[in-house]
Amino acid sequence: MINPLNSLITALKQLPGVGEKTALRYAFHILNANPDDIRELIGSIKRVREELRLCSSCFNLTDIDPCVICSDPKRDSGRLCVVETPLDLMSVEKSGRFKGVYHVIHGLLSPLDAIGPDDIRIKDLIDRVESGDIEEIILALNPTIEGEATASYLAQKVRSKNVKVSRIAYGIPIGGSLEYADPLTMSRALENRTEI
Amino acid sequence: MINPLNSLITALKQLPGVGEKTALRYAFHILNANPDDIRELIGSIKRVREELRLCSSCFNLTDIDPCVICSDPKRDSGRLCVVETPLDLMSVEKSGRFKGVYHVIHGLLSPLDAIGPDDIRIKDLIDRVESGDIEEIILALNPTIEGEATASYLAQKVRSKNVKVSRIAYGIPIGGSLEYADPLTMSRALENRTEI
Repeated sequence: MINPLNSLITALKQLPGVGEKTALRYAFHILNANPDDIRELIGSIKRVREELRLCSSCFNLTDIDPCVICSDPKRDSGRLCVVETPLDLMSVEKSGRFKGVYHVIHGLLSPLDAIGPDDIRIKDLIDRVESGDIEEIILALNPTIEGEATASYLAQKVRSKNVKVSRIAYGIPIGGSLEYADPLTMSRALENRTEI
Repeated sequence: MINPLNSLITALKQLPGVGEKTALRYAFHILNANPDDIRELIGSIKRVREELRLCSSCFNLTDIDPCVICSDPKRDSGRLCVVETPLDLMSVEKSGRFKGVYHVIHGLLSPLDAIGPDDIRIKDLIDRVESGDIEEIILALNPTIEGEATASYLAQKVRSKNVKVSRIAYGIPIGGSLEYADPLTMSRALENRTEI
């Protein structure tokens, strides 16, 4: 195999879910793409690495501080949605249904992996709650063991501060089929049934 | 969406088969990867673009001219395998069964797309054949209409030069199931049956 191509393939295989064949396809695309596209690709990789930092208020990724969401006067700063990662935040944003602000905790409590409250952005969250003005905290964490543990921990920490704590609903996804729902999802959907 | 991230996602979506979600995953990987990996990724993209050229003999991609295959004295230069692309060449090489040399024609004849013999590396192939020393030409072209047309054209051009022309076998793939073979593959497999 030709050397420069080989090292590009090795580098591309670092991307999540990319094996030999996909890396090869990407490499040939890169080889044949027009110079402007390649300049843009390299430039945007560098910019992402150099210009992105965490918002000092919500810890989302941003190129300006505070981020566009935190500094938007139209957002309801009394409603705080807690998410694990910036990707989860994007997912909530895309729904278009949440008009409050966020707090990204960058991880979940996991005693097995020795991740405790001091390893994630929980202290900053408590500080925000204590500084007042927050009426409701909406927990939007993954329905995993770590997500549940983190949600319970947060609910317990915040409850005493006279703040309403809620969590997003877990159940059958829209467009999903009851036939294929796993038993855990189905039991959650039954538990959390709502009157109509 | 944050701007530098957005432009990286746009750039990554240019890669073949990459949509919004995959680009997002790649972008976050790039954001969080260690600096050495990113330097290597950018470096190898640049090197592939700057250092790769076509071998003046076989027109495969190479960083030295003639390429490692053409300049290998252990390869049988009397046997020439004709492939469409460097990727196809790699596929033949990986089988480990071909010890001759190659000729990459970089395209297939396609009257509908106005691609004629002068648009691909056919003239160079004829020149190599005419310069003597070549005993057999093995056509390893895709079994498509364009592949067939190109194979017929080449066979006809070369036949008069006292050179043996063969083509790779098309049939049921090893590990494939007869049950799922398409009718065309099956009829090819029947036509090209070999005595045992």
